[in-house]
Amino acid sequence: MEKNRQIILVSRPPQQGWLSEENFRLVEAPLPQPREGEILVRNHWLSLDPYMRGRMNEARSYALPQPLGEVMLGGTAGEVIVSKHPGFKPGDQVVGRLGWQEYALSEGAGLRKVNADSATPLSAYLSVLGMPGVTAWIGLFDICQPQAGQTVVVTAAAGAVGSVVGQLAKLRGCRVVGVAGGVDKCRYVVEELGFDACLDYKVGALWPALKAATPERIDCLFENVGGEIFDTLLGRMNAHARIALCGMIAQYNSAPYPLRNLSSLLVNRIRLQGFIVTELTERWPVALADLGEHVAAGRLKYRESVVEGLAQAPAALIGLLRGENFGKQLVRLV
Amino acid sequence: MEKNRQIILVSRPPQQGWLSEENFRLVEAPLPQPREGEILVRNHWLSLDPYMRGRMNEARSYALPQPLGEVMLGGTAGEVIVSKHPGFKPGDQVVGRLGWQEYALSEGAGLRKVNADSATPLSAYLSVLGMPGVTAWIGLFDICQPQAGQTVVVTAAAGAVGSVVGQLAKLRGCRVVGVAGGVDKCRYVVEELGFDACLDYKVGALWPALKAATPERIDCLFENVGGEIFDTLLGRMNAHARIALCGMIAQYNSAPYPLRNLSSLLVNRIRLQGFIVTELTERWPVALADLGEHVAAGRLKYRESVVEGLAQAPAALIGLLRGENFGKQLVRLV
Repeated sequence: MEKNRQIILVSRPPQQGWLSEENFRLVEAPLPQPREGEILVRNHWLSLDPYMRGRMNEARSYALPQPLGEVMLGGTAGEVIVSKHPGFKPGDQVVGRLGWQEYALSEGAGLRKVNADSATPLSAYLSVLGMPGVTAWIGLFDICQPQAGQTVVVTAAAGAVGSVVGQLAKLRGCRVVGVAGGVDKCRYVVEELGFDACLDYKVGALWPALKAATPERIDCLFENVGGEIFDTLLGRMNAHARIALCGMIAQYNSAPYPLRNLSSLLVNRIRLQGFIVTELTERWPVALADLGEHVAAGRLKYRESVVEGLAQAPAALIGLLRGENFGKQLVRLV
Repeated sequence: MEKNRQIILVSRPPQQGWLSEENFRLVEAPLPQPREGEILVRNHWLSLDPYMRGRMNEARSYALPQPLGEVMLGGTAGEVIVSKHPGFKPGDQVVGRLGWQEYALSEGAGLRKVNADSATPLSAYLSVLGMPGVTAWIGLFDICQPQAGQTVVVTAAAGAVGSVVGQLAKLRGCRVVGVAGGVDKCRYVVEELGFDACLDYKVGALWPALKAATPERIDCLFENVGGEIFDTLLGRMNAHARIALCGMIAQYNSAPYPLRNLSSLLVNRIRLQGFIVTELTERWPVALADLGEHVAAGRLKYRESVVEGLAQAPAALIGLLRGENFGKQLVRLV
């Protein structure tokens, strides 16, 4: 009898410390059987995302903590293999949040049917045509609202979100500067994605490179990182700049960094907006439609880091939080 | 021949250190004579405000630094004594930015004619019916946008801005909690101004008092102070809260405070807006009209701390930055 492999959370990392593979456990459960009104989905792809670190804490946040002893939450893309639901049939491709497991039952709520093909593979619906892409779109257009000719800076520029932010901003006619860790990522961001410049925070001081790359300062900051990099960028903002605060990955596993340039928010009359894309449901359709057009026209490139097999997911999440991934971090559920 | 006494800036304080009276010098100049198109104004009141500290630095800011060797900038209320300008006549009361001096020439630009009377003295046009009042109004209504029943917290609650913020929020039907330094200020804020509660940051820990005073957390924060108090308040915000960042007086003379709760901006999807009231000119008329109605109806109380004579201005500004004032800090130019 076939088994369903799952990863559950068995312990929490320190509030401000690093997670470890021991926080997770791979278990096997019987293959679940759908009842009337349910479908059984075979997950082919699991999405790994920085927000997962926050859910591992017990602290109050925008969402409930991931419960101990239960299957880790997470976005998935897969295929319906048994359906007792009138809205689905075997073979339907579905994207949803079915967790760190190979199979899952669903009543269909929260599932999105998609049509992958050779030009747009199923995994793309977890990156440029999924949550990361919509995050980029909403943060850039609804919050940052850049005008053509303005300077947009995006951190974690080679990541699933940052890479889309920068390309969308280029399409809008902006000067786009990325911040990323390492020569390879920076070369990719400039040469493949078409950013005007990329600052490698792993080599030397960020400030002189930032000044050189932003001769007219920063009008829009799409912030994924926080900490010292955020502080440096705060020192380079223009009057009436906008900041889309999407993530603070530098702080998820460590103590807060003391910001020296916080007064820039006041001096430059900055509007900063924290946002969580999953609750901005009314903007998803327009964002996905626009992203879909760009992808179909070949105007949006994306890249994936893929690990093979559910057992690799914990190590891959740790790598993601260390910035080791390149583009969208995925687990192929073989 | 009558003289014009003036205070000029002769040196700058350390970027992150305290100003001193030695940074200023009282000088005497000949009484200026208006040419065609000019008026001569006798200033009766000089307004002292926290922003002045920032102008004393040489660093880039939203306004040019106060030049060394020139009359200190500042808001004033006075009376036209000679007019060679068709729009003014002797006896006209004018509010403007004529600086730290007893007399000033003006071509009329930036001057507002007012009609003080026994119910509304001239000095009120430098507080509740002037820049501090408009700052409170715009920050509260345009940025914080509180709904009836929501919780509004305002720091420097006994100051010229904070006292108006809290009273306006009470008129809007909010729960209002102030933060102020000292028993007297807190008693005034609650008993005279009608705030629901006031937290005295000088006695004991702020956090337990804050939790008790904000059972439904904070929806709107009108921030004048920054530093450790701001950090504590960040830890008590509601989802989708708004922050009007008006001042960071705690940081004007010292090194930045490392914020532990900055991630609240992200987790709670907070909108933070820094603002400078002097550039929001299109909102002044509606704000002043509304403030005027409230004052005329006796719904807005205000209080002044007055020192006598221009020579006292430097010491009074230092006292203001130390939080020694109570309500609006003014200098009567006798």
